[in-house]
Amino acid sequence: MTDFAGRIARAQAALTTQGAALMTLGATDQMRYLTGWAEYGHERLVALFVPASGEPVFVVPTMHQAQAGGNPAGLRQIVTWDDATGWQDALRPLLTQWLANALSPLMLIDEELYSGHLLALQKLEPDARYDGAGGVMTGLRAIKTEDELAAMQKAADRIDAIMEAAIGALREGMTEIELADHIRALMKRDGTREAFNSLVCFGANGAHPHHSTGETRLVRGDMVIFDIGCMADGYPSDITRTVAFGPPRDPDAAHVYAIVSEAHWQARDAARAGVSGATVDGVARGVITAAGFGPQFVHRTGHGIGLSTHEPPNIVGGSDAALGPGMCFSIEPGIYLPGRFGVRIENIVTLTSDGLRSFNADPPRELRVVPA
Amino acid sequence: MTDFAGRIARAQAALTTQGAALMTLGATDQMRYLTGWAEYGHERLVALFVPASGEPVFVVPTMHQAQAGGNPAGLRQIVTWDDATGWQDALRPLLTQWLANALSPLMLIDEELYSGHLLALQKLEPDARYDGAGGVMTGLRAIKTEDELAAMQKAADRIDAIMEAAIGALREGMTEIELADHIRALMKRDGTREAFNSLVCFGANGAHPHHSTGETRLVRGDMVIFDIGCMADGYPSDITRTVAFGPPRDPDAAHVYAIVSEAHWQARDAARAGVSGATVDGVARGVITAAGFGPQFVHRTGHGIGLSTHEPPNIVGGSDAALGPGMCFSIEPGIYLPGRFGVRIENIVTLTSDGLRSFNADPPRELRVVPA
Repeated sequence: MTDFAGRIARAQAALTTQGAALMTLGATDQMRYLTGWAEYGHERLVALFVPASGEPVFVVPTMHQAQAGGNPAGLRQIVTWDDATGWQDALRPLLTQWLANALSPLMLIDEELYSGHLLALQKLEPDARYDGAGGVMTGLRAIKTEDELAAMQKAADRIDAIMEAAIGALREGMTEIELADHIRALMKRDGTREAFNSLVCFGANGAHPHHSTGETRLVRGDMVIFDIGCMADGYPSDITRTVAFGPPRDPDAAHVYAIVSEAHWQARDAARAGVSGATVDGVARGVITAAGFGPQFVHRTGHGIGLSTHEPPNIVGGSDAALGPGMCFSIEPGIYLPGRFGVRIENIVTLTSDGLRSFNADPPRELRVVPA
Repeated sequence: MTDFAGRIARAQAALTTQGAALMTLGATDQMRYLTGWAEYGHERLVALFVPASGEPVFVVPTMHQAQAGGNPAGLRQIVTWDDATGWQDALRPLLTQWLANALSPLMLIDEELYSGHLLALQKLEPDARYDGAGGVMTGLRAIKTEDELAAMQKAADRIDAIMEAAIGALREGMTEIELADHIRALMKRDGTREAFNSLVCFGANGAHPHHSTGETRLVRGDMVIFDIGCMADGYPSDITRTVAFGPPRDPDAAHVYAIVSEAHWQARDAARAGVSGATVDGVARGVITAAGFGPQFVHRTGHGIGLSTHEPPNIVGGSDAALGPGMCFSIEPGIYLPGRFGVRIENIVTLTSDGLRSFNADPPRELRVVPA
C-alpha cells in the first residue's frame, strides 16, 4: 500500500522549507506520485494544487470528476469547472487564501504543465513569483522505496527476456516497424506494454540517437540498435542493446562497440554513493574521447528513472550533486557515425550503500554477432 | 506542395500586427504547421523561434540536428545545444537582438510548450512580457485550404468504413481492450493509424466521457460508445457513434439517444458562417436542457479540428467570434447517466459559403440496435 499521505506531508514540509505558498502539478507523473491518479486533459486543465499547509485540491473538468474522486490518496477536495466558464473563477478564492497565508507569494509549477495554464495562472496572480516544482518533487522521488525497487526489478527482468526474444526475431528483409510491432506483441503476451515508443534502428539509422522507427529493411551486415522498455506495477524499464546482424559490414563496428562497452563499464564502476552525476559522465566521456570519438557522443551518459522513464538525477556534466543510495538511473554511453551506424549500451542501475546493482543483465563486452 | 514560406510570412505579419517581438513554438502541431517538422524532445527543449522579421531559428538538442535540418520548410538556421551546457547561452544573443529590434518586448508562447521551458525563458528575459501564441496561430490555421479539406475528407471516409467494421465486430464477452485492438488492426490494414487512443466504452463506462478503455466485458443489452479517429495525409478524423448491443437493458436508452440525436441535428442546422460557436452550443444545449438532461451534458458541443485533433474554434459558451467558411469542427453533444450509460454522437463538419458539409456519413436518427 503506497503511503500517499506520507508523500503529501513530505511535499508540504519541503514547500515550507523553500518558502513556497503552494505547488501546482499537472496531469503528470508528479500528480501520480502524490495521489496515485493522473488523467491527461489535453488542452483542459487537470491540476493538483498543493498548499504548504492544508488539504490539496484537484481542479478538473466536470467530466473528470468521478475519476478524480477515486484517487487512491483519498483526497476529497475536487473543484470542477466547465468548458463554458473556465477554471479561473473557481480557483481564485483558493489561490488568494493560500497566498495570503504564506510568508512569500511563491508558486512552484510542474515543469510539464502546459505553458498555456502557467500563463493563465500568471494573469490570475500577476504579483506572485513562479518557479519550477522539480526541486521539491525530486527531493521526494529520487530515493526509491523497497516497493519501487522491486517493481523496477520486475520490469527489468521482463524487458531482459523480451530483448532476447527480439534479438532472436531478426530476419533479413523485415522492416523496423515490423520488428517494433513484434516487440509490442511480445510485451502484450507477457501481460505488459510499452513504457515508451519502442525504438529500433537498422544500419545507418542507428546514427540518429532518436531515429523514428520506420520502413527501412534489415540487410545482412547491419548494426541494429534496440532501445525498449515495458511496465511492471506502474514502473518502467529501459534498456538498449546493439548487435550486428551477421558479420558487420563496417570494419570499425567491433572496435566502436568495444569503446562504448568500456565506457559503459567504467561508468558503472565509477558510480557510487557520494559521487556526482557529472563525475560519472566524465568517466564515460573520457573513455570515448580518449579513443577519438568525443564529438560523436552527443548525449548525456544517463538519466534518472522511477515512476517516469526520464526523471532526475541526470548523469551529465554540470550535475554536481552527490548521488545517494536508492537512486536509480541509466548508464548509456553511445557513439554515432552519420551515414554508417551507431552503438549505444544501456542498463538501469541503482546505488546501494556500498556500490551499485544493475537491474538488467550485463551486456556483452564484445560485439554480439547474430546469425543472419 | 505545402506553402510553408507563405505560412511563415503570414505568421510574421500577425506578430507585427500584435506588436510581438517573437513567438516561441514547442515540438507541437504549431511547429509542424509552420515547418512540416516537429520532434518531441521530452524534457529537452525542441523549439522554433519566429521573430517578427528575419529568419526563424530552430533550437534543438545536438542529437536532433540532422532531423531538424531536413525540415520541409527548408529553414536553415539551427542552433544546437548539449545536455551538459543547456540552451540558454546559445539562445541569449538571438533573444537580445530580436527584443532590441521590436517596438514592444512581447514574446508569444506556444500554449503546449512545457512550463519548465517558459520559466527558463522568463528567467533569461525577466523584463519581457509573455502571452499565448494561440491567437496568432489560430488566425493562420482556422480556415482550411482545399488540400487540407481533401485530407480531412479522406480521413473521414476511412474512419466511417472502420466504424462500420468495428460495430460489426461486437461479440458478447469481448473486452473493451480487445475491441480497441481490433480497431487498431483495422486501421493498420487500411494503411493508417490512430489519430488518438481509440475510446471504447461498454455499458455504464459510457457515463464517463473520458473513460479509459479497459477490461470490462460486453454484455447483451449494453450501450456501446465508440470514439475513434485515424489519419490521412497528416490530418486526423474523429467520430463518435453510440449503439445498443442487442435490445437495450436500460428502458431510457432509446429516448436519451433520440434527445442527443435531435441536439446533434439542430446544432448542425444552426452552424453556418457568421454564427458563433456559443450560439451553436446553445442550440444543442437547449434541446438537451429542455428534455431535462442539461446537467448531464457535461462538455462543450464541439472542438475545432485540423492538423490537430483538438484546436480552435471551440463550439462552447463564451466562444463569441463568428464562424467562417473553411472552418472545421466537431458537433458532439452527449448525455451521461452515472451507473447506467452514456450517449454521444459526433460528426466532423466544415462550413461553406452557404451552409455546412459533413465529412462523416450521417448518424442514424434513432438508436441503432446491433444483433447480439
